[in-house]
Amino acid sequence: MTTSPNAGLIGRDGARQKLLTPSLLVDCETLDANLARMQAICEAAGVALRPHGKAHKCSMLARRQIEAGAVGICVATPGEAEAFANAGVGDLLLTSTFASPQAIERVVRICAGGVRLCCVVDHPDVVERIAAAARAKGITVPLLVDLDMGRKRAGVRGPDEAVLLARRILETAGVTMDGLQAYAGHLSHCVSYGERKAGAAEAVARIRAVIEALASELDYTPERVTGGSTGAFPLELAGGVYTEMQCGSYALMDTEYAAVDADGSGEPMFPPSLFVATSVTSANHPGLATADAGEKRLATKYGVPPRIARGAPDGATYRATSDEHGQITLPEGVSLSPGNLLELVVPHCDPTVNLYDHMHVVSGNRLIDIWPIDARGA
Amino acid sequence: MTTSPNAGLIGRDGARQKLLTPSLLVDCETLDANLARMQAICEAAGVALRPHGKAHKCSMLARRQIEAGAVGICVATPGEAEAFANAGVGDLLLTSTFASPQAIERVVRICAGGVRLCCVVDHPDVVERIAAAARAKGITVPLLVDLDMGRKRAGVRGPDEAVLLARRILETAGVTMDGLQAYAGHLSHCVSYGERKAGAAEAVARIRAVIEALASELDYTPERVTGGSTGAFPLELAGGVYTEMQCGSYALMDTEYAAVDADGSGEPMFPPSLFVATSVTSANHPGLATADAGEKRLATKYGVPPRIARGAPDGATYRATSDEHGQITLPEGVSLSPGNLLELVVPHCDPTVNLYDHMHVVSGNRLIDIWPIDARGA
Repeated sequence: MTTSPNAGLIGRDGARQKLLTPSLLVDCETLDANLARMQAICEAAGVALRPHGKAHKCSMLARRQIEAGAVGICVATPGEAEAFANAGVGDLLLTSTFASPQAIERVVRICAGGVRLCCVVDHPDVVERIAAAARAKGITVPLLVDLDMGRKRAGVRGPDEAVLLARRILETAGVTMDGLQAYAGHLSHCVSYGERKAGAAEAVARIRAVIEALASELDYTPERVTGGSTGAFPLELAGGVYTEMQCGSYALMDTEYAAVDADGSGEPMFPPSLFVATSVTSANHPGLATADAGEKRLATKYGVPPRIARGAPDGATYRATSDEHGQITLPEGVSLSPGNLLELVVPHCDPTVNLYDHMHVVSGNRLIDIWPIDARGA
Repeated sequence: MTTSPNAGLIGRDGARQKLLTPSLLVDCETLDANLARMQAICEAAGVALRPHGKAHKCSMLARRQIEAGAVGICVATPGEAEAFANAGVGDLLLTSTFASPQAIERVVRICAGGVRLCCVVDHPDVVERIAAAARAKGITVPLLVDLDMGRKRAGVRGPDEAVLLARRILETAGVTMDGLQAYAGHLSHCVSYGERKAGAAEAVARIRAVIEALASELDYTPERVTGGSTGAFPLELAGGVYTEMQCGSYALMDTEYAAVDADGSGEPMFPPSLFVATSVTSANHPGLATADAGEKRLATKYGVPPRIARGAPDGATYRATSDEHGQITLPEGVSLSPGNLLELVVPHCDPTVNLYDHMHVVSGNRLIDIWPIDARGA
């Protein structure tokens, strides 16, 4: 992790306009408001909030979420777990399955270091491998049974497999059965509120069937049922089966989630706190300009373009058209000049953050801090 | 830049199968063969090779290219220039225009540090800004006039603008006129050899028109005409106007360039030396498996999927289906198990390399070195 080339600007008014471009900006007040709002909603529902760190990969931001009331942080990879653990985040949930000997060794080493790192499993062989590695270190690794909510990506397929796997965990030394993960990822970016509502109801029914099977077959009640996304969490909370929400993107937001009105109000619930600052590098054609944020600086998932938040008039659009460049299309009669600055709302925050080493935390035009994206690439 | 978690495996046989996944691998022998082949082709044509560092962002690889005969390295951003300069690469060409005061200050500071860093310009205001910054430091910055070859991304639009800009450079203290950049990026991934040939002929005519205008209007002959891509360089060399080739992807290669038979032979000229090692994380559905290389580990530009090079039978396919995961589709009767390893040829090498901190250099199954991707994110 290198020092940001903008480090000398910390504390300076007007620094927001003097950053080397492209740079990642976080608006501090908007971020804090987003953290507080999600925390309040989860608390009102009596559900824990464990925000997903894959959306920001930044331990400073994770600590801020914990200070705001989060019970811990989710991570998507063993590398993220290691980075957050190294930064002192002590309560983690690794939401992806893993199975190679080297990944298991890494995860068990993190657990042995004193961090509470809960893992998800979907195969009995992997339970045995994790347990053996844990026993060899003299520790116990907490596990959740991962339920496949329909994407065929990971998870057991239904109540029968869930019971088999839960029994295996309950009977195996070196691991403990902590509950269920039921992440309905297919709902997160489902733009139609009606479809999302129907999907959430179906997901809740699927989870209830597993809970009932665990009770009747094993006399086991999961203390923890974790899942939820920024796009679907109001419906997921309403279902009444989750004890913990994993939402991540609400903190920073992006144009792809802005298209999803999570609560059916027709408006996004969380404004963007994340921006990419970019500057015009060429402008030799009427109606067009080129800026320095391309596909290596703006990642999309569903093909939604970034939105110009500042620096160009209404009607101007931005597209990342090549690795290092984006093309701005301007309304008639408007031009930009080389060196002009723009700020963009990013298409998809998770993979975009993963392209940068630092978040530049701004309050108005003042640069108040620079946070390393310390789990980037991990 | 962190240490690779695989550092302890350097020098070990069988390490290739023991790397934490996902990891980036470079096959040393294939890399060296690719470097030697491109060098030999350029030398036979009497043209300098200045490989593009944006394709690998790795100063160790850049040094290897220079050892193989390259005259220097191209970079796409001021940050890459700084990273390569810091690593001791002393002769650089920044192939993108830049215009903000902070970018100009950064570039001039690199030049003042003793590195030969040539820049491209397409606007007289920017010439003046660079020159003023250079004069303030008591140095001279070498410039090329950037020609727009049809993409409207950067560059002057034709002979008249080229003459105006060249005159401005020639008349301005603090900068020198070094020649032309004419990068025909639209040809790089033009799959049809016939279309590419016609496009290359058109590009050469466009460059010749500028050279003739510079001669007749300014009595100026560019010593240097730089451009060229891995997809089109045989045709670009044949045109006879370039003095320097900028190809980058030939070193590592990817599936998107593999679809372009650069010399019209029907076969790619360079085999892939770059692979992503990934491992199966879940496999609960017949005919499917999930592995740990997703969109944060495999970048595409034209939507071409990665190719499975090792670890699954013929007929198996891989798609990065979410941020952290890829889905493997298997032929009937074949299954994979959690923990199984695969190696993938990446879709697009430039932005894929940009997602990793290290290249693991392998020879057979032995890990011989780990190279930091020190311009990653820069």
